[in-house]
Amino acid sequence: MSEKVTVGLLGLGVVGSGVIKLIENHQQKLAHQLGCNVQVKRVLVRDLDKSRDVDIEEDLLTTNPDDVLNDPDIDVIVEVMGGVNEAKDYILKAFTSKKHVVSANKDLVALHGPELQDAATHNKCDFYYEASVAGGIPILRGIVDGLSSDRIQKVMGIVNGTTNYILTQMDSEGVSYENALKEAQELGFAEADPTSDVEGLDAARKMAILGRLAFSTPVDLEDVEVSGIKGIELEDLQYGDQLGYTMKLIGYANFDNHELEINVQPTLLAKSHPLAAVKNEFNAVYVYGDAVGETMFYGPGAGSLPTATAIVSDVVTVIKNMRLGVTGNQFVEPHFKKELKTSDKRYAQYYVRLFAKDEAGVFSTISALFHDQDISFKRILQTPVNKGEVAEIIFITHQTSLENFQQALEKLESLDAVLEVKSYYKVEGDAIS
Amino acid sequence: MSEKVTVGLLGLGVVGSGVIKLIENHQQKLAHQLGCNVQVKRVLVRDLDKSRDVDIEEDLLTTNPDDVLNDPDIDVIVEVMGGVNEAKDYILKAFTSKKHVVSANKDLVALHGPELQDAATHNKCDFYYEASVAGGIPILRGIVDGLSSDRIQKVMGIVNGTTNYILTQMDSEGVSYENALKEAQELGFAEADPTSDVEGLDAARKMAILGRLAFSTPVDLEDVEVSGIKGIELEDLQYGDQLGYTMKLIGYANFDNHELEINVQPTLLAKSHPLAAVKNEFNAVYVYGDAVGETMFYGPGAGSLPTATAIVSDVVTVIKNMRLGVTGNQFVEPHFKKELKTSDKRYAQYYVRLFAKDEAGVFSTISALFHDQDISFKRILQTPVNKGEVAEIIFITHQTSLENFQQALEKLESLDAVLEVKSYYKVEGDAIS
Repeated sequence: MSEKVTVGLLGLGVVGSGVIKLIENHQQKLAHQLGCNVQVKRVLVRDLDKSRDVDIEEDLLTTNPDDVLNDPDIDVIVEVMGGVNEAKDYILKAFTSKKHVVSANKDLVALHGPELQDAATHNKCDFYYEASVAGGIPILRGIVDGLSSDRIQKVMGIVNGTTNYILTQMDSEGVSYENALKEAQELGFAEADPTSDVEGLDAARKMAILGRLAFSTPVDLEDVEVSGIKGIELEDLQYGDQLGYTMKLIGYANFDNHELEINVQPTLLAKSHPLAAVKNEFNAVYVYGDAVGETMFYGPGAGSLPTATAIVSDVVTVIKNMRLGVTGNQFVEPHFKKELKTSDKRYAQYYVRLFAKDEAGVFSTISALFHDQDISFKRILQTPVNKGEVAEIIFITHQTSLENFQQALEKLESLDAVLEVKSYYKVEGDAIS
Repeated sequence: MSEKVTVGLLGLGVVGSGVIKLIENHQQKLAHQLGCNVQVKRVLVRDLDKSRDVDIEEDLLTTNPDDVLNDPDIDVIVEVMGGVNEAKDYILKAFTSKKHVVSANKDLVALHGPELQDAATHNKCDFYYEASVAGGIPILRGIVDGLSSDRIQKVMGIVNGTTNYILTQMDSEGVSYENALKEAQELGFAEADPTSDVEGLDAARKMAILGRLAFSTPVDLEDVEVSGIKGIELEDLQYGDQLGYTMKLIGYANFDNHELEINVQPTLLAKSHPLAAVKNEFNAVYVYGDAVGETMFYGPGAGSLPTATAIVSDVVTVIKNMRLGVTGNQFVEPHFKKELKTSDKRYAQYYVRLFAKDEAGVFSTISALFHDQDISFKRILQTPVNKGEVAEIIFITHQTSLENFQQALEKLESLDAVLEVKSYYKVEGDAIS
């Protein structure tokens, strides 16, 4: 074993700069743990002349990927360039050159994780990607190692900081979705084009990765049903609050009897739920195991240094494996087979808000309609609006199958007395009222 | 590699029974991960005839430790018997016979962890003890692996479920310490003799273990200053609540510049702190790292199956190491040297409640006294009691050194106008008021 291990970086953006800083600042701790130094030797960048947030010798930089991928001195490749196709090509090349890879690329891992894992195993290389889910939170290790003996039944995550920041602002400051988004953009918590975040796509990628590891089953990105927070109305947060719930964008995955349900959707969460206290840009993943019960892993979901922590901790693991001569042994379990759960087997509670004519008998008509679908109500709020001509009705159902709920909704919309079904959301947990 | 790995158990109490059940119930998942079965072969018990909470063949049980420790078929010993001296002897014998050990014994690990680790390494054996801290929460892995690249600055833990249950009940139901304790005993959350829990000793053991791993420094149990929650008064929780704080028994450890501060004490925690939402018998450990910032690990701190999850996950790790031929390589870092922080370097905010004569100028005398010690106030509450003859004064200080605070307290108690300094507590975080 040489006195140093040499790392090559693909990409030097916000996260790549964090990796450089962390390796430099924590050299003493790394050396103590590993018995050798860790050195960054080459860094692939798009533009040599761009000004950067980190001190780095100019001759380390290159625009030619082969300078990194084919350098025989480099043992570990850290991929922090983002994007899918190019990054995938480079990683596959790295494996062919028998280099280990640590990636922070959720898009890539969500789409091609199993294929990359296979290539790594085939070449006796390590492939780790802790930073691809929930930034600095060591959640993949938590699931794969910490809860290895348990059968995980359910994973729920607040895995997108932008949307959690927006929802927290709407909740605590009473501002509209549009204003909260604008503020998030000004503070750098949301990008100029926030589509991937607010439409739930970013969260869906992380849930696909979490689902695979939690349930040892193949989860494809298209298995994840997605609905985002775009245009969510303050009124629903406020009624939720009144009834004991907080609105969160929740990634939800459960697996039993080889049947998988996986989705991302705005959800009214009972305030007593551990995830309800997760505020602003923070992330958290709640894991329910058969034996362990409720656990939760909380921390920063993004950011230069937090994300770098996850990456460099993966590098530490790879170097330990190198020293022990056990790289390429990730014990990827034989996969369990999987079916997607049909809507008659997906159970949840729902919140519904609607406007109806404020007439005698309207509520009992609605109630009877739901009763016919085997759905009963848990909480009801009714308020007259517009001088008593219109009633705003809010209710929360008991557990129902999605199939029954969808049928009830359809019938509800066709009722004469119902003017508009304004919104409906999934509800998790029991509010103490 | 044989087709099964054989485990011997020392002890068959609540946790031991959980281990038996978990290995049985999750055999399929274990076999999928390990490529072999896991079998419990012998179990050391004190009494062969005791009725038990788990189905187990009678001829697996023995009262002779050598039947477990000297059985050549047994690869891994799980120590769940508790106690210190006997357990230590057995574990040392196990290492001598080249058996790996997984222990849930916080008392033992807190007192003799480093010695046991040395014996393990010397014999090329594994020694894991995830279950000794915070039951089912994989916090030791979180620190050792997940945050391996970071420099951990601070660890704060709610690591005793009994006291957290009592404080939660006092807070939410407004009951006295005595009644909350009685209820906890009736529900099985507190033992008939609750001393070790309510006086903070149990939490201190866990903090010693956490401190060692988080800071790579030798922490002895006697380094941990302890004060418990025994006789804590409801009034202080209520005033705390009014000012935006929640009372928790917090294990606190910080390390900088080779100086360690480590203690367990009731603390008023700002409600916005992630640990403030940890209720009832749940545990959580908050870790602040130089690069990652705030993280928190939450889950059940005790219980048969949750604790068994941590133990069997350790067994899984040991078996993976056996298969890879890398046991006895725990990369225990060279230790950093340590000094205990003196009181002039320990900074905190404090809450003080006192009774004083309700006279003109009393408050300004008190305020001047603190000002002379360089301590200023952040919040003040003053209420007349006993028909205006007595004033109850509550204040929260800004950050001060412990040395200055102790001097101020001493002077405060000698003031003529001060009738009684009723209580004082450390304060963590900033309440939003």
